[in-house]
Amino acid sequence: MELWYTEKHTNTVNFSIQVKRHFYSESSPFQQIDFFESKEFGTFFTLDGLMMVNEKDEFVYHDMITHVPMATHPDIKRVLVIGGGDGGTVRELTRYKHIEKIDMVEIDEMVVRACQKYLPITANQLTDPRVTLYFEDGLKFIQGKVAEYDLILVDSTDPIGPGEGLFSMAFYTDCFKALTETGILINQHESPYYPNYAREMKRSHDKIKKIFPISKVYQFHMPTYPSGHWLFGFASKSLDPIKDFKKEKWEAFGLETKYYNTDLHTGCFALPTFVKKLLEE
Amino acid sequence: MELWYTEKHTNTVNFSIQVKRHFYSESSPFQQIDFFESKEFGTFFTLDGLMMVNEKDEFVYHDMITHVPMATHPDIKRVLVIGGGDGGTVRELTRYKHIEKIDMVEIDEMVVRACQKYLPITANQLTDPRVTLYFEDGLKFIQGKVAEYDLILVDSTDPIGPGEGLFSMAFYTDCFKALTETGILINQHESPYYPNYAREMKRSHDKIKKIFPISKVYQFHMPTYPSGHWLFGFASKSLDPIKDFKKEKWEAFGLETKYYNTDLHTGCFALPTFVKKLLEE
Repeated sequence: MELWYTEKHTNTVNFSIQVKRHFYSESSPFQQIDFFESKEFGTFFTLDGLMMVNEKDEFVYHDMITHVPMATHPDIKRVLVIGGGDGGTVRELTRYKHIEKIDMVEIDEMVVRACQKYLPITANQLTDPRVTLYFEDGLKFIQGKVAEYDLILVDSTDPIGPGEGLFSMAFYTDCFKALTETGILINQHESPYYPNYAREMKRSHDKIKKIFPISKVYQFHMPTYPSGHWLFGFASKSLDPIKDFKKEKWEAFGLETKYYNTDLHTGCFALPTFVKKLLEE
Repeated sequence: MELWYTEKHTNTVNFSIQVKRHFYSESSPFQQIDFFESKEFGTFFTLDGLMMVNEKDEFVYHDMITHVPMATHPDIKRVLVIGGGDGGTVRELTRYKHIEKIDMVEIDEMVVRACQKYLPITANQLTDPRVTLYFEDGLKFIQGKVAEYDLILVDSTDPIGPGEGLFSMAFYTDCFKALTETGILINQHESPYYPNYAREMKRSHDKIKKIFPISKVYQFHMPTYPSGHWLFGFASKSLDPIKDFKKEKWEAFGLETKYYNTDLHTGCFALPTFVKKLLEE
């Protein structure tokens, strides 16, 4: 018998992974959660049938969401992670000894508990004493907060289902208020290639650039996401990821990384012309 | 009825495209050639069941194989293209008015004739008066040539089947001899992500760096190739793609490009750490 997991990247494009077993399948109050074991990607899980995290390429996403802002502003001490139930973003943050406080707000506790059980490669630092887990709606959590965080990482699903509000004008405005004067917001920024994703990329960027004086986009290779061409948004009140890049200071941390490095820090902001045009439209 | 084209990216990973019709299927003396029409990618063709070119993302590959060397050495006048039967690489080269001679050596005339008929988007400049088509083995064509070309573009299939010899030490050595003193060799360099492709990437790089004093690798996002993370090799007798980059001179050509731009020129050489390590091993 062969068992295949298939994800529709578009209505007429499928990506399929042969799985050894489908060992977890639960409906939380928010979404459908499934865990699989595969030869090529190791353990992976999906939310509402979309690939979230797998053991083979999670390092790409988690390196890029974390180290780009940390190398722009190496003095970050208070961090808010919204979403990120797999724990991989928190894992990378905990590698910085000088970070004092990491609040993680994940709406779906079942995702976190399942990842702690089945995906320790990403979830293994959620018990770090600097980490506080809040199982609530990030939209509500952030309301009314003023200058509490140096960095907000929005590690969300696509803007359909529980992640939808995390792509709204109201949410980005609340993030702006919750950040300190040198604060940085990184958000999951979808992809430029397939039209459905490109539309969300543009919508997100259009909103953020109205609120933040500095708003850039950077890219990386994420083979298991649709098209493999994926983006994060970098927004800040005052810091530019290239002009304010603290290369030597970041290198002095001595962190070993598998994807991120200081050449790539600059390189990843160099976008193809068609992406720049889509973002400027 | 639904008709799906499926390509195995690994033994346990499939990429599938729903097609409107499969309208050409012929065996040449060298390989199996198939043409399809699809909603997402327009017309595409496969060789021995592997995606070669489609109307949606061909611009990525053809921009990156052509404009990176042309912006490093804008005075290139004599170019050899090996492979490239779809004509897209030649199309980009013909946009440079000062190029005097473009020899294209493609082993399989049937691929060229089919692309001229069904894929004019890439094949439409093969009749440019500066272009000479040779339907023969690139390996033999290049033997004995001395300082005849300023640029050699190896636009080949994977190193299995008719493209195999184009990844050999003997061939790279012949390329070195066939190039002028400032000559550049660009070659299809596979991908770092799935092990089968990463092995060929390393083998190719190991050979080229033994022959050429300058040997670099650059990356791009090619959604329809396995993992979407694809590479070209840049090798040269004397020019470095970053130090010798002629940004202003290239911009003065006034070429509109959809993927390549002068920021990306530098950015694409910034490789993820895991890729750098694989190449250095």
